[in-house]
Amino acid sequence: MSERTGQTKRYLLTVSYDGTNYCGWQRQQNGPSVQQTLEETLEKLLRQPVRVTGASRTDAGVHALGQRAHLDAVTNIPAEKMPFALNTMLPGDIRVLHGLTVPDSLHARFSVSGKTYQYRIHNSPHASALYRNLSAHVPVRLDDRRMDEAARVLLGTHDFAAFAAAGGSAKTTVRTITEIRVERRGEDIFLTVSGNAFLYNMVRIIAGTLIDIGHGKLPSGAMQKALDTGDRLQLGVTAPPQGLTLVEVRYPEESLRTRE
Amino acid sequence: MSERTGQTKRYLLTVSYDGTNYCGWQRQQNGPSVQQTLEETLEKLLRQPVRVTGASRTDAGVHALGQRAHLDAVTNIPAEKMPFALNTMLPGDIRVLHGLTVPDSLHARFSVSGKTYQYRIHNSPHASALYRNLSAHVPVRLDDRRMDEAARVLLGTHDFAAFAAAGGSAKTTVRTITEIRVERRGEDIFLTVSGNAFLYNMVRIIAGTLIDIGHGKLPSGAMQKALDTGDRLQLGVTAPPQGLTLVEVRYPEESLRTRE
Repeated sequence: MSERTGQTKRYLLTVSYDGTNYCGWQRQQNGPSVQQTLEETLEKLLRQPVRVTGASRTDAGVHALGQRAHLDAVTNIPAEKMPFALNTMLPGDIRVLHGLTVPDSLHARFSVSGKTYQYRIHNSPHASALYRNLSAHVPVRLDDRRMDEAARVLLGTHDFAAFAAAGGSAKTTVRTITEIRVERRGEDIFLTVSGNAFLYNMVRIIAGTLIDIGHGKLPSGAMQKALDTGDRLQLGVTAPPQGLTLVEVRYPEESLRTRE
Repeated sequence: MSERTGQTKRYLLTVSYDGTNYCGWQRQQNGPSVQQTLEETLEKLLRQPVRVTGASRTDAGVHALGQRAHLDAVTNIPAEKMPFALNTMLPGDIRVLHGLTVPDSLHARFSVSGKTYQYRIHNSPHASALYRNLSAHVPVRLDDRRMDEAARVLLGTHDFAAFAAAGGSAKTTVRTITEIRVERRGEDIFLTVSGNAFLYNMVRIIAGTLIDIGHGKLPSGAMQKALDTGDRLQLGVTAPPQGLTLVEVRYPEESLRTRE
């Protein structure tokens, strides 16, 4: 037995999933969630009750390339071996990509310093057969340059009150967007957004609004007006979940460093 | 009734599909095929028996962005409206992207002048959750530049006897490759191959061999040796089907032109 036995440590996992067949990240009554699937697999591997806390509670149908989640456990399995062990047991639409031992003070959700999301629009007369679950279909030709210009208005620190769906629990609606751009690659349009934190459904409301701006249904000035007035009605509908992917979650470097 | 009624015309459709849930393009006893699903949907739409002939008989699990298929039918529905009507009835993993009236002499398979395939390799320690059905997973780090160099040996007209799986029906094994390249984008490696025609499993044998060359299990000279000797044993295993996508099928321009 190694000297580690008996000592509870905190582990941080990087998790990728195809959200198509899940009711979202968080445990729900109405179907399997990514969190539940991961917890049950960890319990089989570690032979103890395990609770994981995710950085982001992604909605049903939303995907992740780099979700992060922490857990506390007593085990001899080195953190860097956990992904390989877990992936032999998990269904193919969930993969654990990375494992790390972190200080107990690191909280997967509250310690986050930044996140990056991508929203994919299949902008073609017909939906995509291959990427139907990984993109939103918009048949009307969109002006991606107009969308890119409109998006850039959101760069910086603003009160994003207009960009929040009901049901959020944030104390303040001020957020900082550090990167936002819209790029066309053939028949696909990609919106990439990075920020310190996001309100509930914020990226999908931004995507829905940009689709309306790209289509000419909303004026280019809609973003600025929404920032100024805090009025949700200035914006487009919430874009569908399957276009959204949580690409990356970041923490302050010092918060990940274990003191020895 | 329009003047077209009663006159049989030939139609050429461009079809995209996610091959994951099909036993391949061609009708089989052991499960639903893309051909069968398309024929049944066309029969519902056109209210007559319909037989479609595909350009390529893709294997189970292989995908298409631009498969082509012809059919003969008597209908008032204009060719360019067919995709929209069919897509309301087809399952989401099959989309008809384009419809065209063509001369009776155009045969979807025998008139082909060129095809392009892409093979996607997810080259990462862990498989991809999002693209698990659209890529082959190779956990060992591959040298994509070595793969690209090795692939280019195949450019031009050669006897590809060594690159054919048993079961093909080709009279000659001489083929012309007009474009071949290997590119890395992050953790994914894409092989793109264009040619006048391909032997059975030829692209998957090329992909499997390039994986072994990129891994160092086969020497760079394996391609040339296989061309020289016609010996299948010089090459790697046939790479798995889910990495392969038929991107485009081309016909001579004049063969598509309907005389009026």
